[in-house]
Amino acid sequence: MRVINFNAGPAGLPQPALERAREELLDFQGTGMSIMEHSHRGKEYEAVHNEAISLLTELLGIPSTHQVLFLQGGASQQFAQVPMNFLTPETSADYLMTGVWSEKARDEAKYYGQSRIAATTINADKRYTRVPKQEEMQLDPAAAYVHMTSNNTIYGTQWHTFPEVGSVPLIADMSSDLLWKPIDVSKFAMIYAGAQKNVGPSGIVLVIIDKGFMAKGSTNIPKIFRYSTYAENNSLYNTPPTFSIYLCRNVLAWIKSVGGLPQLERWNREKGELLYGMIDRHADFFRAPVEKGSRSYMNGVFRLPTEALDETFVAEAKKAGMVGLKGYRSVGGIRVSMYNAVTVDNVKTLVAFMEQFVKKHG
Amino acid sequence: MRVINFNAGPAGLPQPALERAREELLDFQGTGMSIMEHSHRGKEYEAVHNEAISLLTELLGIPSTHQVLFLQGGASQQFAQVPMNFLTPETSADYLMTGVWSEKARDEAKYYGQSRIAATTINADKRYTRVPKQEEMQLDPAAAYVHMTSNNTIYGTQWHTFPEVGSVPLIADMSSDLLWKPIDVSKFAMIYAGAQKNVGPSGIVLVIIDKGFMAKGSTNIPKIFRYSTYAENNSLYNTPPTFSIYLCRNVLAWIKSVGGLPQLERWNREKGELLYGMIDRHADFFRAPVEKGSRSYMNGVFRLPTEALDETFVAEAKKAGMVGLKGYRSVGGIRVSMYNAVTVDNVKTLVAFMEQFVKKHG
Repeated sequence: MRVINFNAGPAGLPQPALERAREELLDFQGTGMSIMEHSHRGKEYEAVHNEAISLLTELLGIPSTHQVLFLQGGASQQFAQVPMNFLTPETSADYLMTGVWSEKARDEAKYYGQSRIAATTINADKRYTRVPKQEEMQLDPAAAYVHMTSNNTIYGTQWHTFPEVGSVPLIADMSSDLLWKPIDVSKFAMIYAGAQKNVGPSGIVLVIIDKGFMAKGSTNIPKIFRYSTYAENNSLYNTPPTFSIYLCRNVLAWIKSVGGLPQLERWNREKGELLYGMIDRHADFFRAPVEKGSRSYMNGVFRLPTEALDETFVAEAKKAGMVGLKGYRSVGGIRVSMYNAVTVDNVKTLVAFMEQFVKKHG
Repeated sequence: MRVINFNAGPAGLPQPALERAREELLDFQGTGMSIMEHSHRGKEYEAVHNEAISLLTELLGIPSTHQVLFLQGGASQQFAQVPMNFLTPETSADYLMTGVWSEKARDEAKYYGQSRIAATTINADKRYTRVPKQEEMQLDPAAAYVHMTSNNTIYGTQWHTFPEVGSVPLIADMSSDLLWKPIDVSKFAMIYAGAQKNVGPSGIVLVIIDKGFMAKGSTNIPKIFRYSTYAENNSLYNTPPTFSIYLCRNVLAWIKSVGGLPQLERWNREKGELLYGMIDRHADFFRAPVEKGSRSYMNGVFRLPTEALDETFVAEAKKAGMVGLKGYRSVGGIRVSMYNAVTVDNVKTLVAFMEQFVKKHG
């Protein structure tokens, strides 16, 4: 019996993608071995690898100016690898600060060059309840790049209009909302995303990078850290995390089978409207700190009137078959993560539970 | 129907470890979700994580001076991460050159400091057919560390006596033979191993590091690249590759269940004696280039009298249910990888096939 999983990441995966993995876990396509026992240089694995790339390319409409790469180490490694490749002691990068992950990204840049805060929405409580407006950004036209976090899992904020950064390369950490809807990839010099929210298991990072931008990367760094090494070798320079890429392939194939990103966007908007509709109908009970224009369709956060009620909410939801609702450790409250594998029906079940909860405790 | 898998890596995994994963792939221990859908901060995953560490500690007898860490990026990332942590422009490290992976490791060191070749067994054909003798090593007593590759998958050589390096920290890439037999971990300042030969799937690197040595690592590098960051956070600083660690746990539990490393060593020695016995009985047909004292128990390499026969061998073996026997692309010939998941019976089947093959084609 599967529970309703609102985990913030690693998060729930679409059941058909997992069932497909289970079906062939010991014998992939009649080859007599698991896909994870196949050589990464064999034709069986290579077909999976290339299918994952072509599915991602098709679903996102990635233009031929850009290339898909598979890396490891999580988004946290990208926080360091981006400036290692694209920042020098003589150059400066702009960071748009919208939460904990933006801060961590900027912290790693200082080992390679200068980093500027081009905008921040941190408030007096050292929290973030919205993303910056265009007119608040003080962009450096000479910056090596602008770095942003498209969705902020901890604070529950999301960019609904991407910033205009002129001719400066825009780099986005989309770990928690890549594939939630169609986007215009051509606006970005680079997108990276740890897979464990919307795309697959932890242990694999998707990178979509502009080839011209990539070519400007440093060559005075180890080969294994250069994006160009991955590009030149179709992400097979060294052994990739084959089973994780296989699972991403299964998820991407599932996305395509249900109608691609337009369909996911419809579902995700419906889920968000269900949740925020309930919150707004009982705004003094479900206290949502995020400004409406910055609300995340991936992570809805709110607090109940007391911490004791937060705990009761999590405990009673668990009894009703819903898990993963506790807020991030540094923030508290409730967090509802509604990534692609969470269905509209799952959110309807939660919202019905919330309705009962407010009647009982409100 | 499972084939006999002699892949060099990613390699075959013990069937019970895979069956356990299949059994609970959609519902881990009655929690209603896959282990890969669990939060890495939840008690269910944490128990798996800690069990993997404690099993590895128990199986190898890791002393309390050392700590087990889980990293990502393969051994290839360690080639860069080791000098990033432990080498500076003012210091020099010694490299013991025994094959392609030693060369790649040394290539990455040059971005951080000086590297010396303390010994090499490269021959006129630019190949390696043995490991160095102690008296051939010209060690620098002031070196930051000595780096070695304990088993060389491509050339089929293996260190059977570890080098004496005095008080200089010894670092070993054991990607292809960790857990093949008991070893004295206290001799090493650091051991690292990509899991995909003897321990698990690709996408996870095991590190065993001396805490005193680790403390000397640079703090002027990004947090994500410091071994100390992993140590201070029990390898949970950022999201680890949870499913890969879970699979390693399953393999380690299987190793313990069959009798631990003493039993694996008996099996591995028996497998090696079966293969090399056959090779030596038909030495002009199965032409093994490696000196007897350096032969690998993990990867046996040989060539047949002609390249056409090499191809016939691989093709006929495949018909007989044995795969993965083709030599490394730059070397050719036949390679028999006999990691822990390959059984004595598997090697007996291969050796019987070799006997028939030499009768037919010899």
